[in-house]
Amino acid sequence: MPETKLPTPDAAAYAAARAHQNQLTKPTGSLGMLEDVACRFAGWQGRAVPRPPKAAITVFAADHGVTAEGVSAYPSAVTAEMVKNFAAGGAAICVLARQHGARLEVVDVGVASPLPALSGVVSARVAPGTRNLARTAAMTEAEVDAALEAGRAAARRAVDAGAGVLVAGEMGIGNTTPSAALICHFCALPPEAVVGRGTGVDDAALLLKTRVVTQALARLPAGADARAVLAEVGGLEIAAMAGFYLEGARLGMPSVVDGFIAAAAALAACAMAPGLEHWLLASHRSQETGHQAALARLGLAPMVDLGLRLGEGSGAALVLPLIASALQLHAGMATFASAGVTDKA
Amino acid sequence: MPETKLPTPDAAAYAAARAHQNQLTKPTGSLGMLEDVACRFAGWQGRAVPRPPKAAITVFAADHGVTAEGVSAYPSAVTAEMVKNFAAGGAAICVLARQHGARLEVVDVGVASPLPALSGVVSARVAPGTRNLARTAAMTEAEVDAALEAGRAAARRAVDAGAGVLVAGEMGIGNTTPSAALICHFCALPPEAVVGRGTGVDDAALLLKTRVVTQALARLPAGADARAVLAEVGGLEIAAMAGFYLEGARLGMPSVVDGFIAAAAALAACAMAPGLEHWLLASHRSQETGHQAALARLGLAPMVDLGLRLGEGSGAALVLPLIASALQLHAGMATFASAGVTDKA
Repeated sequence: MPETKLPTPDAAAYAAARAHQNQLTKPTGSLGMLEDVACRFAGWQGRAVPRPPKAAITVFAADHGVTAEGVSAYPSAVTAEMVKNFAAGGAAICVLARQHGARLEVVDVGVASPLPALSGVVSARVAPGTRNLARTAAMTEAEVDAALEAGRAAARRAVDAGAGVLVAGEMGIGNTTPSAALICHFCALPPEAVVGRGTGVDDAALLLKTRVVTQALARLPAGADARAVLAEVGGLEIAAMAGFYLEGARLGMPSVVDGFIAAAAALAACAMAPGLEHWLLASHRSQETGHQAALARLGLAPMVDLGLRLGEGSGAALVLPLIASALQLHAGMATFASAGVTDKA
Repeated sequence: MPETKLPTPDAAAYAAARAHQNQLTKPTGSLGMLEDVACRFAGWQGRAVPRPPKAAITVFAADHGVTAEGVSAYPSAVTAEMVKNFAAGGAAICVLARQHGARLEVVDVGVASPLPALSGVVSARVAPGTRNLARTAAMTEAEVDAALEAGRAAARRAVDAGAGVLVAGEMGIGNTTPSAALICHFCALPPEAVVGRGTGVDDAALLLKTRVVTQALARLPAGADARAVLAEVGGLEIAAMAGFYLEGARLGMPSVVDGFIAAAAALAACAMAPGLEHWLLASHRSQETGHQAALARLGLAPMVDLGLRLGEGSGAALVLPLIASALQLHAGMATFASAGVTDKA
């Protein structure tokens, strides 16, 4: 796997944006995180007044052998059923993409049951789901590479379609289990601090899920690199999301990180290419245990706190209007001088 | 002052909306607060699938005699200057209103210096600012009544213009001081737990502001009613916001509560008409000390946490797309049955 060389956000444009913010008719810093968002886009776009970006959302779908253990409240078949629901426009992420005028693409990187050709669904199948990570490595490293490349290719398509900000989502029954394992590994946290109820398992399944994660992590050799970690305890759609973030950043495009699974993918991607975190924005604080720790490790602060635990990229899609607000305020507000308003005494 | 009789949200429509939410293709409860928002709008509109509402934003402007004490980082003159900035479209709230297609009206309820006729600014001047609440009652009860009525009239204009959701904002240099006093009173909290830096005062001014609030509260007779409390330690734009919330609810229209000053107004309004809280939605968690306590007292949970401390209704305006998302998801997502997706095992 070649090391990904990432560009550096434009520090001069960032500084010029910060100076501009301090001239706008408001107390310095009073727009909080929205000021940071505007300045970060300035750095990403290399201009003091960044243009409101078009958004592209890519949802990666795959299945998980670990569902055989009973770690999810839903049967594996739901992954394929939901891909059909995405194609038909009935899922939450479809509604949000329509509301925000965002491009939406679904990529099958490894749904267990074969799917018919579906409008808006790209087939990039690596395997019919992962193997059961409770017992054995979820993937080979070759499968991880193929999934990473499926994500990279999706990011290129999104950028080619004119996107200026990227969202990766996922659909994969069982995928909070590999995500918890990844977050435990990259944040050096015990499973008890990270494993949560996912789509809504009961106490018994939560205990089982915690045991599964503990077992899987025990197989990881000391010093395993991110690719080896993904192979042992990851998932196809998680690796694809990591590839998507990496390629987006390589092309100078920021990504908005969704919830628990997205944070796991982002941690893996950051381990592959230090500095990736400079191209990421957090969106929401998920209900899932351990999400906060993952965001903290990424150095990201969430914008909304809505008690979401849906996935699909929904939390990241929801904050797109807040990003638009940040950039419109930056570009559209009067300055103290232009409005004839007295600055601080 | 006549007691305001408020309608009760439609419990049957609320329950029907909740049942509908549980049929949508997502784990039960996974859209978190957005599910609650959709169900509350169902109750407000009396229909299981509420219509996305048009928003109206009213910004109330007034001055504060207490600025003579040095409690603000900005001179009083900025209130009038900012009203002109609102009229010219250069303030943050103007940018947000344009982004969201919301009606924006500014109401002068007591700016100290006379203003020329300005487009989009309604004159409903009660007094040229309040008196200095550090030394004497800020208003007479007659002035409170006039300010309440200015707010009520503004709510009627917004509803007449077709609004289905209301936002009240404010502009008034010095207004975190009366707001802190009101929050102390209605939440039974000491000034040290509530008084904050407002637009950005230093440590010395923070101490002074705390002493001013302590002195003002000491004048309140035991058992003072909300109107008397507003008169003693409130503000003209704060009373107007209270009237706006009350009249909105009386007309069956919910309001989105902005930050610290809005929360103070909402607490006063709730004290005048118990049950008003059933017509309020919180928007953001402000940076200002004491805001969280005020929201908790109102029984409201904020949707976003952006470190805002601007006012003008900006935090409430920022969440309008999240409210739109909640309603569009509610109306537009497929059900398990319609999409052929297997529900929980």
